[in-house]
Amino acid sequence: MNSTLEAWILTIGNEIINGVITDTNRETISRDLRSVGISIRGMSSVGDDIPAMINEIDRAMGLSSVVVVSGGLGPTEDDKTSEAVARLLGVELALDVEQFERIKDRFQKWGRPMADSNRKQALLPQGAEPVPNDYGTAPGFMIERDGSIAMFFPGVPRELTRMLKEQGIPRIFSKFGRPKSIFLSRTVMVYGLSESRLGEILQDIAIDEPGFHLAFLPRFPVIRLRLDVSGETAGRVEDTMATKLGVILDRIGENVVSVEGKSIEEVTLELLKERKITLALAESITGGMIGELITRVPGSSECFMGSVVSYSNEMKADLLKVSQQTLQEYGAVSHQCAREMAIGARSVGHADIGLSVTGIAGPDGGTSQKPVGTFYVGMSTNDGVFSRGFLLPGPRDWVKTLAATQALDILRRWLTGIRLHGSEL
Amino acid sequence: MNSTLEAWILTIGNEIINGVITDTNRETISRDLRSVGISIRGMSSVGDDIPAMINEIDRAMGLSSVVVVSGGLGPTEDDKTSEAVARLLGVELALDVEQFERIKDRFQKWGRPMADSNRKQALLPQGAEPVPNDYGTAPGFMIERDGSIAMFFPGVPRELTRMLKEQGIPRIFSKFGRPKSIFLSRTVMVYGLSESRLGEILQDIAIDEPGFHLAFLPRFPVIRLRLDVSGETAGRVEDTMATKLGVILDRIGENVVSVEGKSIEEVTLELLKERKITLALAESITGGMIGELITRVPGSSECFMGSVVSYSNEMKADLLKVSQQTLQEYGAVSHQCAREMAIGARSVGHADIGLSVTGIAGPDGGTSQKPVGTFYVGMSTNDGVFSRGFLLPGPRDWVKTLAATQALDILRRWLTGIRLHGSEL
Repeated sequence: MNSTLEAWILTIGNEIINGVITDTNRETISRDLRSVGISIRGMSSVGDDIPAMINEIDRAMGLSSVVVVSGGLGPTEDDKTSEAVARLLGVELALDVEQFERIKDRFQKWGRPMADSNRKQALLPQGAEPVPNDYGTAPGFMIERDGSIAMFFPGVPRELTRMLKEQGIPRIFSKFGRPKSIFLSRTVMVYGLSESRLGEILQDIAIDEPGFHLAFLPRFPVIRLRLDVSGETAGRVEDTMATKLGVILDRIGENVVSVEGKSIEEVTLELLKERKITLALAESITGGMIGELITRVPGSSECFMGSVVSYSNEMKADLLKVSQQTLQEYGAVSHQCAREMAIGARSVGHADIGLSVTGIAGPDGGTSQKPVGTFYVGMSTNDGVFSRGFLLPGPRDWVKTLAATQALDILRRWLTGIRLHGSEL
Repeated sequence: MNSTLEAWILTIGNEIINGVITDTNRETISRDLRSVGISIRGMSSVGDDIPAMINEIDRAMGLSSVVVVSGGLGPTEDDKTSEAVARLLGVELALDVEQFERIKDRFQKWGRPMADSNRKQALLPQGAEPVPNDYGTAPGFMIERDGSIAMFFPGVPRELTRMLKEQGIPRIFSKFGRPKSIFLSRTVMVYGLSESRLGEILQDIAIDEPGFHLAFLPRFPVIRLRLDVSGETAGRVEDTMATKLGVILDRIGENVVSVEGKSIEEVTLELLKERKITLALAESITGGMIGELITRVPGSSECFMGSVVSYSNEMKADLLKVSQQTLQEYGAVSHQCAREMAIGARSVGHADIGLSVTGIAGPDGGTSQKPVGTFYVGMSTNDGVFSRGFLLPGPRDWVKTLAATQALDILRRWLTGIRLHGSEL
């Protein structure tokens, strides 16, 4: 039994430090270790350079009891991890006969000739414990020094993940014991509050306590709240989670889109499906983004009839029957136009709800009365017609995304029975 | 002048080390530094933990002349980078009045009240040089120690990238001089070839030579080819670049969307604008994605009339005048329907070109004759009507994205005069 076990993750490769590839191995190693109760102290990456690797492995083993390393075990000249480890330990590389047989067997099974370079993969630092690879050619290995262990895996994601789970984690447990904590995580999706405002509202629960951590993870335009709870029994962990979620829902309930990490479009679609309500859209400023978001959800065709993306005024008039009077007197970016668009969408889509948005995304087209970032959301239902105006200036993509999200969120709130504040007709 | 200048990249945040988010800041910092001739020695990440940060900043400054740090400058309790730096240097945090005024101004411009927590963002370690943020609230700062510099930026990608380019890199050069090599990079956008096929075609030029590196950077659904050339004179660097680009264009010209890193929608919009051609869409499977992509481009309203997202058959018939006969005999996912949708879009949009796409994104709705991943692109122009069928099975978002991209790419090729192979009517 071990109360805290910390790991350092090291990934190796020029392509990583040069920004040529997105290194996702770090994340998967981190998640796999955390899911069994091992905390992460930090992560680093160095290139295919022996002195840099030696330096980094040495330091990581000094900082953490467990070091997980990926990369640099391939057959090519670039792959130098085994050599770096041998030099760090002051030993030679030696052919591991058993691992070499496994590599030969694998090629035989594939019916392909083994390249000479593959022999190199069975050269391990003397004294290292081999970690057989059932999914590819390069075996991994493990070393111990001053009470710390370092495990080396190939960088191929599917080999790495499986080897870590099936062989790495059991070896960590057999050396250090199993961490006695139980872990539980939840992701709460929040929309409609700024990060700083949210920080103030949740200030008192955002302070780390033993066994609880709340992280703010903005992913424009929503903020994800990540709740991590750990403790010694499942009951206690679940209680803490329920208490913390209760506080959050109590304080910002209307702004909570989901306590299960779901997006606004997923939640909205679920609500529509549950109640067998159909939806049609009239989009202008968003150019089709709302329809695109909604149709990401499998089965959206049950409730989503379609969208009229009326970028031109002619399409607003011809297809949505927005009146010439409205277009001339109030303009295409107005409460009146948003309402007529919503009514038109509902009618042409033969839908229960018509939802619309019209505005100015910029960078051009703004005026002093209607600057870039002005948009109006309209909604037409059995209850009548509703519209609401916004001014959220920013770059074009930002304004478009906010306009689409606001429209969807207004629909979500209406469907959950939240009273909407706007200019009702 | 400096012959080799090495940097270490450090990213900060629990969400990074815990594998909750994919940290792409490391990659962009790496690429931005390399593009001006700075090599990367390594990268690391630690959580929002002051001792771990101190340890890591200290070590990185010992290893490299330049340390670029991102994250931990936000307004919440989590954000502890400034405090860690102050402790490392043995100084206090002090309010930087000028940066505080900038934060206040920014909120005033937005017409939003400033939260108390935002004041914290103007607290910088004494003696640090502020790096103003023109794109958000958190200022960055820079420190020097024993001949190394460390620069701290917010973790928001668009703020970080711009601040590093506009303020960070010039400060590095003013401290260490400009690396004496001249660097030139180009990004070639390729669509319509698989990565392995492209690898075969470009095998001989994909081998690293001194002063030349070609990287394959797939960013679904396009492949970016990144060409990095370095040398001692501008003339030589430009010659090498021209030669390599020439080879690429010669071998895969039709599949090259842009040699300047532009997206298919940008290139298509430019072609439409140049020739004053207007476009209307009829989208089904893509749910609005093509319109969304096109309206990302500023000024798209000049050429883009709108889109009828006819998810339901009623909308296809009512708005686009797709005939009942077509819907009954061939179905909504057919050459015939795609063609009638394109004709309908052109007509209701009063546009020069009508472009359409209809298909099955899945996971449900596929049949043995028309499995998930089947889609048809239709185009109606003065020249007549054209359609082309595809079968590209995969997950829902993948199929949607490919359908949208294929439609746009067919339009792009037609506009550049490339002969289209399809089933013309």
